[in-house]
Amino acid sequence: MQTLTGTDLRKELQHKIDSKTKPLGALGRLEEVALQVGLIQGSVRPQINHPHIVVFAGDHGIAATGLVNPYPQAVTAQMVLNFLAGGAAINVFCRQQNIGLTVVDAGVNFDFPEEPSSKRLIRTKIGYGTRSYLEGDAMSRDEALQAMEAGKRIVSDLFRDGCNCIGLGEMGIGNTSAASLIMSFITGIPVEECAGRGTGVSDEQLERKIATLRDAFRLHLPAIVASPTALTILQHVGGFEIAMMTGAYLKAAELKMIILVDGFITTAALLLAQLSDQGQGLQSHCIFSHTSGEQGHEKMLQYLGARPLLNLGMRLGEGTGAAMALPLVQSAVNFLQEMASFESAGVSQSGE
Amino acid sequence: MQTLTGTDLRKELQHKIDSKTKPLGALGRLEEVALQVGLIQGSVRPQINHPHIVVFAGDHGIAATGLVNPYPQAVTAQMVLNFLAGGAAINVFCRQQNIGLTVVDAGVNFDFPEEPSSKRLIRTKIGYGTRSYLEGDAMSRDEALQAMEAGKRIVSDLFRDGCNCIGLGEMGIGNTSAASLIMSFITGIPVEECAGRGTGVSDEQLERKIATLRDAFRLHLPAIVASPTALTILQHVGGFEIAMMTGAYLKAAELKMIILVDGFITTAALLLAQLSDQGQGLQSHCIFSHTSGEQGHEKMLQYLGARPLLNLGMRLGEGTGAAMALPLVQSAVNFLQEMASFESAGVSQSGE
Repeated sequence: MQTLTGTDLRKELQHKIDSKTKPLGALGRLEEVALQVGLIQGSVRPQINHPHIVVFAGDHGIAATGLVNPYPQAVTAQMVLNFLAGGAAINVFCRQQNIGLTVVDAGVNFDFPEEPSSKRLIRTKIGYGTRSYLEGDAMSRDEALQAMEAGKRIVSDLFRDGCNCIGLGEMGIGNTSAASLIMSFITGIPVEECAGRGTGVSDEQLERKIATLRDAFRLHLPAIVASPTALTILQHVGGFEIAMMTGAYLKAAELKMIILVDGFITTAALLLAQLSDQGQGLQSHCIFSHTSGEQGHEKMLQYLGARPLLNLGMRLGEGTGAAMALPLVQSAVNFLQEMASFESAGVSQSGE
Repeated sequence: MQTLTGTDLRKELQHKIDSKTKPLGALGRLEEVALQVGLIQGSVRPQINHPHIVVFAGDHGIAATGLVNPYPQAVTAQMVLNFLAGGAAINVFCRQQNIGLTVVDAGVNFDFPEEPSSKRLIRTKIGYGTRSYLEGDAMSRDEALQAMEAGKRIVSDLFRDGCNCIGLGEMGIGNTSAASLIMSFITGIPVEECAGRGTGVSDEQLERKIATLRDAFRLHLPAIVASPTALTILQHVGGFEIAMMTGAYLKAAELKMIILVDGFITTAALLLAQLSDQGQGLQSHCIFSHTSGEQGHEKMLQYLGARPLLNLGMRLGEGTGAAMALPLVQSAVNFLQEMASFESAGVSQSGE
């Protein structure tokens, strides 16, 4: 019965799209997005309400070693302060697009002062950064669970406040390395093909990054093969911000929200969430915003069979790709809502 | 001396872009757009003021023959009425993005009533549609000149009212055929590779469209070879809306405006304007919005060495691609204006 309703809704949406005053299919990908958003919301009159981006920040033990990243670990905290002061790229784009923005201390190695400017910060620190996965597990099983639960709670709260469209972003020096390992464990693509230049390592640094990640891969492979779940992978090589995003995706799909997927690290969290997806049809809720300039992202997207809306060579994280895609999604919803039909506008159709 | 100033400005803009709190180059194409807009405006603090889209509408004699188009010629006028009533895609997108919208009767085969809803219509009709280029010239040399002048005047008026960023759009049943001929005459690419499905012709109709365009090409080639100017090409196979856009591009570059280039037909007008460009550096003012789903557009863009921002499979015209690209251009300007620098935000740089 539910399948039949789904089929009927799809037909009705497609009919509505095709009756608009434009040649069939002439709005291209926007028509696909309109259809998808209608199906997510179960309505021929979908709406975007209170779109919001949540930036999860966390530190990584590996970053303190200096083996994988050109920026010092302290930049994670400095950038969180920049988010709170409104000076980062994601602040600029959210202001422009009227997107709500929340920053989450998922586990930054810094105590943020209690200041008025920090009121946008959700304090749900799991720890002062993960442990280096070269020395053992990045976090405990319990910490991974806690982080996933925190991510779910944050999404639930936003949903309760009226948000039905969410983008996830992240900040964490060293987190392209964690994402590369996660990608390799889940997709089976060798880690050297998953790892890229992140914030901009040199050739020599990239070689060292890859060698380091190969070591980490070998160290953690047996445990992950024994129990290939999101929780195990997070425990072994994850980040607190990645674990929270994993939970956040699952909750957002459960709540039938529109999910704007950003770049390399956020898509790695999506791969983890897919492992835990209990039939919520997670990916059908996802609109892939952009192809990141970080080289592994394109392969991740191929693995998922995803075709992002934008390809602007951006590789900044913070949810900036999701912010850039929102106006396109809004345009898809708006044409469906506002355009005249051939009939209502008195325009002749093809062949009349 | 002017070159030195240009070089200094470029350096200063690049330095400003690189000092923002993001890894070098991490905003990808947005950084290129920021640089370009700064260079167009001769400023490290560029701004977008009163962005505006002008939709030029005109009828084509060839459309009355039914040889090239599935929609009846009357749809041009019907769509203009739809624009004036606010029900077309371009209306929806301009409202969403806060873009001004003007519709121009460049030469529609219809007398638009004097109604309050028509106040956004600029009445500068050159004629009731062009003549069929299968029978002779589409328009007189004088009509082509008049139309180009009208396009220049419309842009000058918008500029005077404070607009510094313009997108051109068009509506005209049959105008992909004129654009295909123009493209073929200018680029030397065979007309069958230039022509596409337009608003959606069938295989059989496409074959007939191409045969018709081959006939027209042969008929007008000698005159165009003898005098390969924009004016001659417009006279022989052009449209009134295409001629106005040709003039509009030239004036916009002269006034150092940011030009958002839309799809297949508007890019054909740009090819014509390039032929007349008297060193205003027209193309350096152009931001290419999107790659149209109309098959010849990609080859046109290759010919120009242009890399559009979007590729969404859109093929609607009306300036809809330009409207979709504006938020990206605005984001480029905004990050340059509003983002904190490493220094101002106290963020450590790579290697510190």
